[in-house]
Amino acid sequence: MSIDDKVPIDDASQFGGSRSVGWVETQSWTFDAPPLELDCGRSLSPVTQAYELYGELSPERDNAILIFHALTGDAHVAGYHSPEDAKPGWWDIMVGPGKAFDTAKYAIICANVIGGCKGSTGPADVDPQTGRPYALHFPMVTIGDMVRAQKQLVDHLGVHKLLAVTGGSMGGMLALDWAVRYPDAVASVLAIATSARLSAQGIAFNEVGRQAIMADVNWCGGNYYGQEVPRAGLAVARMIGHITYLSEEQMHAKFGRRLQEREEFGYDFETEFQVESYLRYQGNRFVERFDANSYLYITKALDYFDLANGHRSLVEALERVQAHFLVVSFSSDWLYPTAASKELVRALQANAVPTTFFEIPNAYGHDAFLLPNAQLAETVSSFLANVQQRVRGRAPELHTP
Amino acid sequence: MSIDDKVPIDDASQFGGSRSVGWVETQSWTFDAPPLELDCGRSLSPVTQAYELYGELSPERDNAILIFHALTGDAHVAGYHSPEDAKPGWWDIMVGPGKAFDTAKYAIICANVIGGCKGSTGPADVDPQTGRPYALHFPMVTIGDMVRAQKQLVDHLGVHKLLAVTGGSMGGMLALDWAVRYPDAVASVLAIATSARLSAQGIAFNEVGRQAIMADVNWCGGNYYGQEVPRAGLAVARMIGHITYLSEEQMHAKFGRRLQEREEFGYDFETEFQVESYLRYQGNRFVERFDANSYLYITKALDYFDLANGHRSLVEALERVQAHFLVVSFSSDWLYPTAASKELVRALQANAVPTTFFEIPNAYGHDAFLLPNAQLAETVSSFLANVQQRVRGRAPELHTP
Repeated sequence: MSIDDKVPIDDASQFGGSRSVGWVETQSWTFDAPPLELDCGRSLSPVTQAYELYGELSPERDNAILIFHALTGDAHVAGYHSPEDAKPGWWDIMVGPGKAFDTAKYAIICANVIGGCKGSTGPADVDPQTGRPYALHFPMVTIGDMVRAQKQLVDHLGVHKLLAVTGGSMGGMLALDWAVRYPDAVASVLAIATSARLSAQGIAFNEVGRQAIMADVNWCGGNYYGQEVPRAGLAVARMIGHITYLSEEQMHAKFGRRLQEREEFGYDFETEFQVESYLRYQGNRFVERFDANSYLYITKALDYFDLANGHRSLVEALERVQAHFLVVSFSSDWLYPTAASKELVRALQANAVPTTFFEIPNAYGHDAFLLPNAQLAETVSSFLANVQQRVRGRAPELHTP
Repeated sequence: MSIDDKVPIDDASQFGGSRSVGWVETQSWTFDAPPLELDCGRSLSPVTQAYELYGELSPERDNAILIFHALTGDAHVAGYHSPEDAKPGWWDIMVGPGKAFDTAKYAIICANVIGGCKGSTGPADVDPQTGRPYALHFPMVTIGDMVRAQKQLVDHLGVHKLLAVTGGSMGGMLALDWAVRYPDAVASVLAIATSARLSAQGIAFNEVGRQAIMADVNWCGGNYYGQEVPRAGLAVARMIGHITYLSEEQMHAKFGRRLQEREEFGYDFETEFQVESYLRYQGNRFVERFDANSYLYITKALDYFDLANGHRSLVEALERVQAHFLVVSFSSDWLYPTAASKELVRALQANAVPTTFFEIPNAYGHDAFLLPNAQLAETVSSFLANVQQRVRGRAPELHTP
C-alpha cells in the first residue's frame, strides 16, 4: 500500500463519501463572565466562538486535536455545509476518515479566531456598550488572546488535555502559543509553515495591506458597516498576500508572461497578463467573504506575535514546554522560510524538547501547506499515531495502584 | 593603493569637491518631426527629453556613456543642482572625476525616460490636441520606445557610437534593448541588477501597485491634475516597491521587530514597528516627487519588457549584438535575482558575445546597485578601461590608408 493509498487526495466529487466527514455544521458558544482579559489591557465580553467538531471524543477524552486556521480561514476545516456546497472545508484534504487527521481515530476541533468575521466575536459585531458595530472600537487582540479564548472553548467541551494542537502559517503561531501558555494541556504540537515570530518583512507586507484598506475612501475610519465596504483597498491587500503565498518558481510555472485571453499586447490598463487576471480574481473574490476591519485586526495580531515576548529569549520562552513537536517547512516558502522553522527547532532542542523536523521539497511556496501533499499527510499521520501510542502507553500506568 | 582609494565612496560633504561633477544643470531637447512612432501603434509629438551631461566629449566622439535610470529615477545622475541641494544625483557615488564612471575620461549622458515626470514628455504634460494634460490619453510606451527616443537625443548630441550603455534594474533593460536595437551604435553594455524580461512576480507586484493607485478616490481615472492627487494610493504602491528592493536579511538587520519611539506595544493602528515607520516615510516622501500616472505607465513598460519579444528566443534576439557585456547581479536581490542574470549570460554566450559576469555577495537586496560598493565600482572601472582600450586600439586602423 502506497502513501497515496493511505492518504487519499481530496475527494470533492465524493460528497459525503467514505473519506469525507460529510455534512457538518458550524456551532457557536458564548461566554460573558468573567470577561476575557486581553493583552492590550482591555477586556472583551461577551465572547462568541464559532467552531466545528468532527469525530468522536474517546471516553478518556484523550484523542482531541485542535486545529487553528490561518489569517483568512474559519472553523469550517472539513466536510460540506450543504449539498449545494461546491467546495469542502479549507483542510478537507487532511481531515476526514482515513486521512492524516483521521476522524475515525481523533476528535477534531476548529474554531474561528476572535477578531475574525466567521462567527466569532470581531469588529463587525455589535458592541453591547453602544448598540453599534465595534468597528475600530474593537479592542486589539493578540495571538495569545485568541488562544486564551479557545482554551475556554476547549474546557467547555470537556477536554482538559489535547492530543495535539496544530496549524499552518498563523495557525502554527497559535499552536506554539498554546504549547507555551498551557504546557499541561497538550501532548504534541504540529507547527507547519510557521515561525516563532513574524519577520520584519512579514510586518512590512501586513502594513502595506492595512494602508491599502485605510486608503480606501469607503473605509471611513472603519465605520463602513451598512454602507459601501472598502472593496478596492481590501482587494489590494489580498493581492499583496497572494503574491507572498506563491513562490516565484510556481508563479513562473503557473503564469509566466502568458497573456490572458489575447494574442497580443493591448497597450492599455486592462488585464493583459494571466498573473494580473489571477490576482484581480483573488482580490475580488476575497472581498465577498471577508471583513476589512478583521483583516486589519488579524494582521496586527500577526505583527505582535513573538513567542519570546515577555521572555529573555525564545529558548527561555520554551522552557516549560512538555509537548512533543513536529515542525514542517516547505523549501520554496519565502514568507515563512525554512530558516524560521530551524530557529524554532534549535530553541526546542536547547530545551531537550523531543522534536521532529522536516523540510518538504516543494515548489508551491507558502500555499503548499493547503495543497495535497503525500509527504505532509504521511508525516502528520505517523507523528500522531506515535503521540497517541505514547499518551495511551502512559495512561494505564496512572491507573495502576 | 586599495580599491577604496581608487574608487572613493560618496562625498556629499564635499560639494563641488575634487570628486564631484559639481554644479550641474538639467537640459532639455524637443523634437516634433517626424513624430516618434510607438510600439502601441500610436505616435508621440512633440517629444521633449530632459538630460544631463558631464565630462568632455573627445574629439573622436568615442568616449560617451549613456546611463539609463530606474523606475523612479531621473536625468540627475550626479552632482548638485544648487548650493542648497542636500543630496547629489542618484548615482553620484559612481559618476564623477576619479569615480567608476570617470568624468575625467568619459562623457556621461543621462536622460529622463518618456512617460516619466522629470522633464521628459509624460502623462502630466499638455496634450497639444486638447490643450489639457494627457493623463490616460497618453499613449502606452515601452522600453523600446524610451530607447528610440533617447537614440534621437544621442544623435542630436553628435554621438553616433556610444562607448557604453548602462543602467541598473529598469535602466539595465533599456541598455539591453539598445544593444539589440542599435548593435552598431554601442561598444559595450553594463547590465546591472537586471533581467532580459520582467518575471511573473515582477508583473504581479507592479499590478498591485497600479491597483492601489487606481483604487484611490483621488485618482479620478487619471484626471487629477490641478486637484488633489492620489497620494494614498501612490504611497501604497511605493511601499510595495520598497519591500521588494530590500532583502529579507537586510530588513531584519535594519529594522528587525524593533519598535519606533516606544518601549511597549501601543495596541493601536499607529506606527509601532520601525519597519512600518520606514515604509510610511518612503511612501509619503515619494508622492511629493512623483506623478501617479507616470508610475502606471512606467510599470506597464516594465511588464511588457521581454528582450525576446518579436524573436523566437532570447538567444535569437541577441544574434546581432556586437557590444561586449558586463553583467552584474547581487546575491540577495530577489526581484532581479542572479538566476535572471545567468539566463541572460547563457544567451549571450550562445551567441559568442564576449561577456563578463559577476555575482556580488551582498546583503542589501535589489537596492544594492544604488549603494556604495567597492567591488561594483572597481569592476565597472576596469571593464570600461578595457573597452576604451579596445575601441581606441581599433580606431586608428580605420584611419590608416
